[in-house]
Amino acid sequence: MEGLVQCSANYVPLSPICFLERAAVVYGDKDSIIYGTVRYTWRETLQRCVNLASALSRLEISPGDVVAALAPNVPALYELHFGVPMAGAILSALNPRLDSTMLALILQQLEAKIIFVDYQFLQVFLQALGILSEAKIKPPILVLILECCHPATFSSTNEKIPAGSLDYDGLLAMGQPDFEIIRPSNECTPISVNYTSGSTGNPKGVVYSHRAAYLNSLAVIFRSDLKQMPVFLWTVDMFRCNGWCFPWTVAALGGTNICLRKVSAKVIYDAIFLHNVTHFCGATSLLNLIADAAVTDQRPLPHKVDIVIAGALPPPQVLMKAVELGFNVTHSYGMTEALGPVTTRLWHPEPNSYQHAKIKCRQGLHNLIMEGVDVKDPSTMKSVPRDGKTIGEVMFRGNTMMMGYHKNLKATQEAFRGGWYRTGDLGVMHPDGYIQMKDRSKDVIISGVKTISTIEIEAVLVGHPMVMEVAVVGRPDDCLGETPCAFLKLKEGCATSADEITNFCAERLPAYMVPQTVIFGDLPVNSTGKIQKFVLREKAKAVGKLPL
Amino acid sequence: MEGLVQCSANYVPLSPICFLERAAVVYGDKDSIIYGTVRYTWRETLQRCVNLASALSRLEISPGDVVAALAPNVPALYELHFGVPMAGAILSALNPRLDSTMLALILQQLEAKIIFVDYQFLQVFLQALGILSEAKIKPPILVLILECCHPATFSSTNEKIPAGSLDYDGLLAMGQPDFEIIRPSNECTPISVNYTSGSTGNPKGVVYSHRAAYLNSLAVIFRSDLKQMPVFLWTVDMFRCNGWCFPWTVAALGGTNICLRKVSAKVIYDAIFLHNVTHFCGATSLLNLIADAAVTDQRPLPHKVDIVIAGALPPPQVLMKAVELGFNVTHSYGMTEALGPVTTRLWHPEPNSYQHAKIKCRQGLHNLIMEGVDVKDPSTMKSVPRDGKTIGEVMFRGNTMMMGYHKNLKATQEAFRGGWYRTGDLGVMHPDGYIQMKDRSKDVIISGVKTISTIEIEAVLVGHPMVMEVAVVGRPDDCLGETPCAFLKLKEGCATSADEITNFCAERLPAYMVPQTVIFGDLPVNSTGKIQKFVLREKAKAVGKLPL
Repeated sequence: MEGLVQCSANYVPLSPICFLERAAVVYGDKDSIIYGTVRYTWRETLQRCVNLASALSRLEISPGDVVAALAPNVPALYELHFGVPMAGAILSALNPRLDSTMLALILQQLEAKIIFVDYQFLQVFLQALGILSEAKIKPPILVLILECCHPATFSSTNEKIPAGSLDYDGLLAMGQPDFEIIRPSNECTPISVNYTSGSTGNPKGVVYSHRAAYLNSLAVIFRSDLKQMPVFLWTVDMFRCNGWCFPWTVAALGGTNICLRKVSAKVIYDAIFLHNVTHFCGATSLLNLIADAAVTDQRPLPHKVDIVIAGALPPPQVLMKAVELGFNVTHSYGMTEALGPVTTRLWHPEPNSYQHAKIKCRQGLHNLIMEGVDVKDPSTMKSVPRDGKTIGEVMFRGNTMMMGYHKNLKATQEAFRGGWYRTGDLGVMHPDGYIQMKDRSKDVIISGVKTISTIEIEAVLVGHPMVMEVAVVGRPDDCLGETPCAFLKLKEGCATSADEITNFCAERLPAYMVPQTVIFGDLPVNSTGKIQKFVLREKAKAVGKLPL
Repeated sequence: MEGLVQCSANYVPLSPICFLERAAVVYGDKDSIIYGTVRYTWRETLQRCVNLASALSRLEISPGDVVAALAPNVPALYELHFGVPMAGAILSALNPRLDSTMLALILQQLEAKIIFVDYQFLQVFLQALGILSEAKIKPPILVLILECCHPATFSSTNEKIPAGSLDYDGLLAMGQPDFEIIRPSNECTPISVNYTSGSTGNPKGVVYSHRAAYLNSLAVIFRSDLKQMPVFLWTVDMFRCNGWCFPWTVAALGGTNICLRKVSAKVIYDAIFLHNVTHFCGATSLLNLIADAAVTDQRPLPHKVDIVIAGALPPPQVLMKAVELGFNVTHSYGMTEALGPVTTRLWHPEPNSYQHAKIKCRQGLHNLIMEGVDVKDPSTMKSVPRDGKTIGEVMFRGNTMMMGYHKNLKATQEAFRGGWYRTGDLGVMHPDGYIQMKDRSKDVIISGVKTISTIEIEAVLVGHPMVMEVAVVGRPDDCLGETPCAFLKLKEGCATSADEITNFCAERLPAYMVPQTVIFGDLPVNSTGKIQKFVLREKAKAVGKLPL
């Protein structure tokens, strides 16, 4: 067609930066952040982020540079989600529970020019700095985030801090309030790097674009049927998939961020009553926290509160408890590479817990903005029949996928082979379009001619009234190749026997799926709380077969 | 950054086509369309649209070709919103109230290869065909849309229909159900052309891209706080800004479309009760229709129903009535060039109608996806102060703007001069970010040294209990240059005098704003129902000054 143009009037590179600019107009006087006695409005938050971007520019941060952060969910980390992109730079919020070796490795890979470190994690950072300095690698400039209420912390640790370091408030004061925001000239420019937990090797730096972050922030709204001005409690780590993109979503909706240094049941219940929290999210353990809270903390809610959880299945009684208390619980399935949750499903508890566990295994429907969610034969790339039986690999494609792994083209190409993102998870497709997870490809147990999904066994075991946590792995078997081996952590004060457990399973599962080995004790988890099945597999190999 | 790729796994050109594909999976068995006794599910709608796209391809429609339509809000026009883009083509849904000369002109400009004509508008199309044929212009192939319930219509008009014409159902039957959907390789490819009403000259063909249509369909969801599966009643014309993008939005949310051949109060109330309609929208007259409905039709609603209206201000008593009946009324401001409404504001009726009219003048806040909404000095392009007083031109920029005017690069460049879309409307910016419209630049009255906003006078006049419709224009005056001249249509059975009207205004407006001339009678409207102020200006010039 003739007569058309593309110009700044009708084409603006998609970027979540605009959510904050709009919030400062539309919701200017409304609370943006509440953190203890600290309170900001959206107009103030925009101003602080502009100052931050300006200060970064004055520190010679240029478009494309990486700015790292090591902090809990404090206001500074929220502001970095806007201030860093507004300087044209790329944010990498790192897991503060990383050890210093891993942290040094990641900082080296990122070539971060500046790092914002919360005083609480200064120790591990200084250790990493030592490692970098030994390897003669130029360290990033340190900006220390102090507790607003305890500015004294800075001076008390002063002697260990490298020369040239700054503190966060001092940095903001360096900024010009009329700094001109640097916008991406191309919406596919990186906005952030999020490291995977690396449960099976070195962590990978997953790169998000401004476009993907913008669209996924909108996707979050649809997924959770969010309305304007939600009150969002920061229980999910902002360093995990950029807090599932919630820093940007909350700005888009002019909501209020309730920031938290540390999550506890008391803090959650207090915030719900004090700030009228409407939404929070995180790993499954969050649900345990709520349901197992001390009776003094646990109270029936004054209004419905939505929780989205991701990860393992919680015991049905925990779920029932949460629903009884007044929570709407949605379970989701996703990964760092997909910017967080992709498929979701609202839970309605069923009286029969086994039945319920079966339903819970169905991981729900794909979100509006993810273009394709399918279960495919990984060799032919054909969709499996929608019969709820044929196993294939769960695959995604769409605009809310990562750009790839930083400095790891081979891994990127492998992940996107065939034009789809390969999750490595096995599943089936039901006739109604719901995907049901079967297992991670590498966790599945091949026993004789049977293929066994470990998560189906786990779904039964979490239904046992004494079981707190569970993981099933394959254990080498001379005759069958592998047999199921269950690792169980019981609830406090509970005791049971391997026999009782296998009987419980035998009543609910076909014989070949009943664990031949049952081991009680704590389960090994990585820095992000994921159970490390590779550790359990080694353990299963090592231990003698327990008597049934 | 290194290691990144762009491929089909992580980059998919944005297009509303995907909403239908997802709806067929996620909401497969749910009603997509209800039209009298006709009912389709989302799975069926996808299949019908694939067949339609396939049939179009078989008729040698290629990517970039234009397919026109002349139809009321029947299922076929809905299906064309997906089927035409799925063949790679561009949809132009035309106003069936155009006269044959204008229709011929537009068809010539569009070079439409195929036109879908509803049997009800066959006459005007055949006349336009005559004009094209006289001018030796190749006419488009005719596809006749028959009333599903009255297939006999086709044969009865048979003799007038050009050889080679088809009927809609016959065309669908030509399609292959396994046709591979043609997707835009670039999301900035045109998806549709919507003609402006052309109240001030020849209508202009406003071109929308897939990207803009996709993003604006999402914007509609935020604007109206829509949840999943709304029931949408088709009272807004699908040929107007592609029905404000609602064909795509309803698919995105898996809602139900209640199609209508003709809008009446009875039809609206019946649909609300029969189908649990949750949303509808259209011009302000829709509100009059509801409030003025015969007592037999008008019933208190069984649930809240959301209406979005655009255009002139309705009389406050009409608004109050609608709210009393159970409607949530939102007023919006936008234009074809911005894909429909841009700013919106929910109305809360006020007891004092003048006060209320004042509040109504404030046109609300910009939508999430529109990047910028501002009031600027058109010569310097600087924002006016946020004082609610300084008049400037209302301007927009963002991804939900048109690509330009078809075959009219000059008009496109003029509209986008300075990198913003210039609405031609005058307004002020309030300290809270709300924009208040003052007038169209060309409608404003310059009286002595005063600049008078005609819509401020109109806002007062609609508050008069006898006034149904009003328009104020400038009338030449030897001494002051211009003075306000009011044209009024009174409610049925009402009578009043010019004196009474000017007294009413004098109590509520400064003296220089009180109309010096008052004329009673019907107001001239164009094909889309807009009052033609240029006709009134001529009339005002011609008539003698009425006694006050």
